[in-house]
Amino acid sequence: MTIPSLARELTCIDCGAVHPLGYRLECEKCRGLLELRYDLEPLRREGPSLLAGGGLWRYAPVLPIADPAHRVTLGEGGTPLLSCPRLAKTLGVRSLAIKFEGANPTGTVKDRSSATGVAAALQFGFTATSVVSSGNAGSSIAAYSARAGLRSLIFAYERASAPKLLHMAATTADLVLYKGVYDDLITHWDRLVESRLFFDCGASRNAYKHEGKKTIGYEIAEQSGWRPPDVVVAPVAVGETFIAAARGFRELRDAGWIPNIPRMVAAQATRANAIARAFRSGRALEPLKIGYTVAEGLAAGNPGRKGEWVLRLLRDGGGAAGDAEDEQILEAQRMLARTEGVWAGPTGVATLAVLTRMLAARELDPAQSYCVIISETGLKTEAAAPSRAATAFDFESLERLVAEKLGRA
Amino acid sequence: MTIPSLARELTCIDCGAVHPLGYRLECEKCRGLLELRYDLEPLRREGPSLLAGGGLWRYAPVLPIADPAHRVTLGEGGTPLLSCPRLAKTLGVRSLAIKFEGANPTGTVKDRSSATGVAAALQFGFTATSVVSSGNAGSSIAAYSARAGLRSLIFAYERASAPKLLHMAATTADLVLYKGVYDDLITHWDRLVESRLFFDCGASRNAYKHEGKKTIGYEIAEQSGWRPPDVVVAPVAVGETFIAAARGFRELRDAGWIPNIPRMVAAQATRANAIARAFRSGRALEPLKIGYTVAEGLAAGNPGRKGEWVLRLLRDGGGAAGDAEDEQILEAQRMLARTEGVWAGPTGVATLAVLTRMLAARELDPAQSYCVIISETGLKTEAAAPSRAATAFDFESLERLVAEKLGRA
Repeated sequence: MTIPSLARELTCIDCGAVHPLGYRLECEKCRGLLELRYDLEPLRREGPSLLAGGGLWRYAPVLPIADPAHRVTLGEGGTPLLSCPRLAKTLGVRSLAIKFEGANPTGTVKDRSSATGVAAALQFGFTATSVVSSGNAGSSIAAYSARAGLRSLIFAYERASAPKLLHMAATTADLVLYKGVYDDLITHWDRLVESRLFFDCGASRNAYKHEGKKTIGYEIAEQSGWRPPDVVVAPVAVGETFIAAARGFRELRDAGWIPNIPRMVAAQATRANAIARAFRSGRALEPLKIGYTVAEGLAAGNPGRKGEWVLRLLRDGGGAAGDAEDEQILEAQRMLARTEGVWAGPTGVATLAVLTRMLAARELDPAQSYCVIISETGLKTEAAAPSRAATAFDFESLERLVAEKLGRA
Repeated sequence: MTIPSLARELTCIDCGAVHPLGYRLECEKCRGLLELRYDLEPLRREGPSLLAGGGLWRYAPVLPIADPAHRVTLGEGGTPLLSCPRLAKTLGVRSLAIKFEGANPTGTVKDRSSATGVAAALQFGFTATSVVSSGNAGSSIAAYSARAGLRSLIFAYERASAPKLLHMAATTADLVLYKGVYDDLITHWDRLVESRLFFDCGASRNAYKHEGKKTIGYEIAEQSGWRPPDVVVAPVAVGETFIAAARGFRELRDAGWIPNIPRMVAAQATRANAIARAFRSGRALEPLKIGYTVAEGLAAGNPGRKGEWVLRLLRDGGGAAGDAEDEQILEAQRMLARTEGVWAGPTGVATLAVLTRMLAARELDPAQSYCVIISETGLKTEAAAPSRAATAFDFESLERLVAEKLGRA
């Protein structure tokens, strides 16, 4: 069965101008960011029976790829929503679920936007893609481009973890390491996008790429039986996941599939907290010069126009924002692994660290139900491996050790 | 809805003696291995409508965990079956799909058996688990034990990759590194299992743990619309995945859900090829003294009684067996990443290397349809990261580089 796309137009989020569908990166009138809009009437009429299949493309009606032949997949989406009563007890909240994005094909939430981004590259007839990345987007875009038979030119940060570098080097022939911070390079690269030598797979402007992340909102809602939790904590670097998830919930509310939109909490690393800082002070967004944070994927000091958009969504929607220090992020990583067996990377658990900190500061209500988006697997973490000092066993020494550790001597 | 388990008894694969369900690791009459048997009549009667939900526990009726409260989950199973026309063309076969087990919560197929293993530990009232591992089983058992609130005592090989060691150290408080080979330690450890200080989460004997892997056969069949491919290539160390997948297909055939059982091919690393060697020579299984292979998870030189079981299945079922050298395994890893965007570890792609080699040697028929089980994500691979020599860009230098790489100068 062919599931049609209900995408209808691109609307400017600043001036409201409406543009026909196509590969355009900003409003022709005011240079504002564009957002995809859909005909939601079939959703209202038919309900969730409109959906078919599994994974990300289950939500094809609300994604902007018309031809099923362009819907590239590595099996992204359909990630687990894990109820975590033990962790909820530790944090003292009524209920807590984690949405584990580490189960995606390249181990991060990026695969959602890579799927629609590379599909759109096919749709608009491009033969090459490109992205500037701290590591995760790079391996994801490279993997999806390979899967689609497209060339990919990946710019990755020289300090990306070894597993990330290895992953990128494996999936693209064109990996270029850059010195300096993401924000500076992205400014040049965004300008170069106009040359159309490659399809824009960056997070700054491309509405088609951005769109795939929306499915995380749809999945959280569907996996909760269309009654999503009260609060959703989402990571914010440039803001793609946050904005897209929020719009997923808004579309579902407008279609009558869910009763309310969850309250959205934006989570940042303290070392790259431009949005949390602006939100708390009530002032405008001020770009920060930043250094290294263990939450590599959150290292954007200048979230640009998407940052402004996140702030607007937070202020208009009664949201909240917080940040966590690197040490708190590493502590959250340990706690999640030992308490629930989930191994996530520092970028991935910043949300949990922020939730922990905001609950401790009584900035959030423990009587509500929470969902925390964990955006990255722990398998991309680079850290000194534990000592390899090892023991050779015979039966007696093994028996002694086990009895000592677990039981009766 | 509570889905009951249709498990009925444990049957000895050697003497056929029937035992009631319970935590028993071998036949009381002949010390043979035990296999779980089910009442398949409801499957025949009701068809696939018997299944509900997603992931591994969708197949709960044919798994041996009676109480849903014991069905521990991290979201395992439901991994993608990816049709790979480009790779099929490269290999010259009619059709090729890969079953990508790297999408499991800890990145490997082990999560299937860890789910039923740790669930069985709960079912039989144990408070601690243990396993001897080259790396993957260790992190998986540790993660599931943490999720279930059980203690885990993990023995891991001193040469396990850094990502694997880090993963294990994060998920258990009781990690012990061992010197020497898996086969030697496992002999002592298997004997210690009798003390009942811990629940046996090893691959040698426990039918309950083994059982979870059966779901890979069910999934391949269901994702193929109950018409599985002609040939399935499965990795073999001790043989758990191979045996369990084969039985999944047999149950489905017996229940009338699939027309035929696929032909099974056992894939090994040449440096640990006891089974492939015995199969080719037509002789009995001879344990090998082995050293290091890049396919760390296949480094079993003495597959023990499960190895005999694999041989019997191969000989009785018209199967085949092959092995691949380390260099061929690394080449398959590169090819899969560049051709289809799938990043798998050496342990995971040994199957693809073996398929490539057997097709080149005309030991397999290119006119058939193939499914290759890729058992492990590439993110656990330890290798020298690519050089971190990086470039700082201004707009002009960036433009020059992109034009050089992708386009018009």
